[in-house]
Amino acid sequence: MKNQELIREKVTQATQILNEFDVDLWLTFVRETTLSPDPALELIADVDVTWQSAFMLCRDGAHVAIIGRFDRENVEQLGVYPQIIGYDQGIAEHLRTVLAEKAPRTIAINYSENDVAADGLSHGMYRSLQNILAGTPFADRLISGEKIIAALRGRKSPAEVERVRQAIATTEALFDEVEAFAKPGMTQRQIAEFVRGRIDEMGLDYAWPKPFNPIVTCGPDSAVGHAAAGDVVLQKGHTLHLDLGIKQNDYCSDIQRMWYVLDDGETEAPPEVQRAFDVVYGAIKAGESLLTPGTPGWQVDEAARDFIVDNGYPEYMHAFGHLLGRVAHDGATVLGPRWERYAGICELPVEVGNIFTLELHVTVPDRGIMSLEEDVLVTENGVEYLSNPQTALRYIKS
Amino acid sequence: MKNQELIREKVTQATQILNEFDVDLWLTFVRETTLSPDPALELIADVDVTWQSAFMLCRDGAHVAIIGRFDRENVEQLGVYPQIIGYDQGIAEHLRTVLAEKAPRTIAINYSENDVAADGLSHGMYRSLQNILAGTPFADRLISGEKIIAALRGRKSPAEVERVRQAIATTEALFDEVEAFAKPGMTQRQIAEFVRGRIDEMGLDYAWPKPFNPIVTCGPDSAVGHAAAGDVVLQKGHTLHLDLGIKQNDYCSDIQRMWYVLDDGETEAPPEVQRAFDVVYGAIKAGESLLTPGTPGWQVDEAARDFIVDNGYPEYMHAFGHLLGRVAHDGATVLGPRWERYAGICELPVEVGNIFTLELHVTVPDRGIMSLEEDVLVTENGVEYLSNPQTALRYIKS
Repeated sequence: MKNQELIREKVTQATQILNEFDVDLWLTFVRETTLSPDPALELIADVDVTWQSAFMLCRDGAHVAIIGRFDRENVEQLGVYPQIIGYDQGIAEHLRTVLAEKAPRTIAINYSENDVAADGLSHGMYRSLQNILAGTPFADRLISGEKIIAALRGRKSPAEVERVRQAIATTEALFDEVEAFAKPGMTQRQIAEFVRGRIDEMGLDYAWPKPFNPIVTCGPDSAVGHAAAGDVVLQKGHTLHLDLGIKQNDYCSDIQRMWYVLDDGETEAPPEVQRAFDVVYGAIKAGESLLTPGTPGWQVDEAARDFIVDNGYPEYMHAFGHLLGRVAHDGATVLGPRWERYAGICELPVEVGNIFTLELHVTVPDRGIMSLEEDVLVTENGVEYLSNPQTALRYIKS
Repeated sequence: MKNQELIREKVTQATQILNEFDVDLWLTFVRETTLSPDPALELIADVDVTWQSAFMLCRDGAHVAIIGRFDRENVEQLGVYPQIIGYDQGIAEHLRTVLAEKAPRTIAINYSENDVAADGLSHGMYRSLQNILAGTPFADRLISGEKIIAALRGRKSPAEVERVRQAIATTEALFDEVEAFAKPGMTQRQIAEFVRGRIDEMGLDYAWPKPFNPIVTCGPDSAVGHAAAGDVVLQKGHTLHLDLGIKQNDYCSDIQRMWYVLDDGETEAPPEVQRAFDVVYGAIKAGESLLTPGTPGWQVDEAARDFIVDNGYPEYMHAFGHLLGRVAHDGATVLGPRWERYAGICELPVEVGNIFTLELHVTVPDRGIMSLEEDVLVTENGVEYLSNPQTALRYIKS
């Protein structure tokens, strides 16, 4: 499916969502989008624009774009904006005219304290919009579009799910290649560079910046978190962990896999390593069992978090899961605890069509971290795994 | 020069600028910067962060970062933030504490109606900051950081100039390759794909998105502006125009070059084509002569624009020049007319250390457009060309 068709699919979905939330008009107001991208724009218009531009979707199905003259042809080619105004000197008068024609009672704009993916309107552009609308009835009709954007971004269409599925399949094949490649004595960096070499060869992109992708954790001496792969050496008796996300055809994967490096004479992992795997796996299953439409995100997190703590490990200091799509952290909803930094977005309900990561880790002293991450689709009846879940430790032999 | 050293150079420059503008503290407040980048952040911290993060530069030279725990190591490695607070649950209390310690009378934040490069703070993050500061004396001390950011971004350090110079040299070598490659009968797309193939082979990046880079205009039937290279065929007796910008080592070029495709029996361009070249070249020289420190941008534009109109061509419907640096459109100042869409930024004065593009076009009926773009550095004494200016038409032979 080509991008144009995907955009058409999402724009049609947006009209339904406007009606569902009783909003008359959704305004995406942007400029210089290569320097200052609005994450919502790529959902409804796969273009970059230069000067101040307005993309308006109305609940009656009307679509209007006001853009600089030199960007006009690119928006025309999308084929989803029947009314396009290409201006030369300024947008203000055109925008006031279109709003007067459409006479919306509510105008959703792209800001959100909680959801970064719904917060593409800059504060300067907000002030600019206020100036343009000053003296019109529309200045007081602006509302946050966070619900509209969260629904539009979060409810994946079948074509979007298919793209994520492809990215995941590619990622899993890469993990198989890592298993054949990695040997004790290699550094984190060598393993990361092997993976990046393969991604570059295939002409694929990265779900998060390349210097930190994949994250490679070797044994107990690696930093945990978002650090670049460094010089720690993979050793026998240690765990090997990769966190890898690729972007293929505009959609992402985000998966973590675990290996244990067999020590001389070993045929399986020592009990404390195996137990850590079993508990992390069990916690993912515990969370998954609550991942049903309507459940608030924090309850899903709580099930996994309690499982870890009940098994004697310290809780993980992050969320159990996030949405996955055009980027790795694909906006609200978060499957996270009720901490300040997840305020609002951890209260949002799980919806059909959401694709979530499910992830957490524990640490095994002297061995390394144990961290898994699966990618799953929420369906009417529960959860469909898009990744082939890791149900057993994998092994690196020397 | 490595990125760390470049960052250190810019952070030192920022302290001087805070003193120059009498601002106590500059706060860059960001989250999920891969999805929602702030153009100012890359100047002072070459990292991405996940949770709400605060980078604070003080006029006394103090640098403080408050970031999520998992991003801590990356900021430490920069070596320019002696005080780093890595938090787990939320940033609010830490931010209030640091501000209480520093007690700034003014806090510059990243919003600007006029300058997109100084407008990285989202409206949702602005509201979030207001909530965090509610009840403290600092809520009323927020001001726009646009002057600070414009100065920091616009006044290129010697190391930054050197990087732009490298990108330009690479671009000019590519133009030579195009001249050897292009033949009548080829499409815009074939020529663009040749250039992109070479850029990809060299492992370089693009100054603006690849589908629209280079812009290739063949004769009178190509769209003018930001469109993707299409199926128009290069023909004898037509002009060939390329607008190409690469990104090398984080810094950009942005250059336009002109060829004429000799028709059978021709040894030079027909008079109307030659005259168009001469007038466009003359207009660039006319603008260049006013490009001196202290001159407002619109006066530079006016000199070039008047030259075009005085020579009987219609004026170009864009600005004569823009800043060039980490991106192709590198923020304020613009050398543009006093139109609504250049409000504010065309009034700003040219400064020493600015790198500007100088560009404009006219159209030759039945032949195609005639469009040039040079990259120049503003010095104490005037202008230094970083590109080798095109002083004569170039030719494609069959």
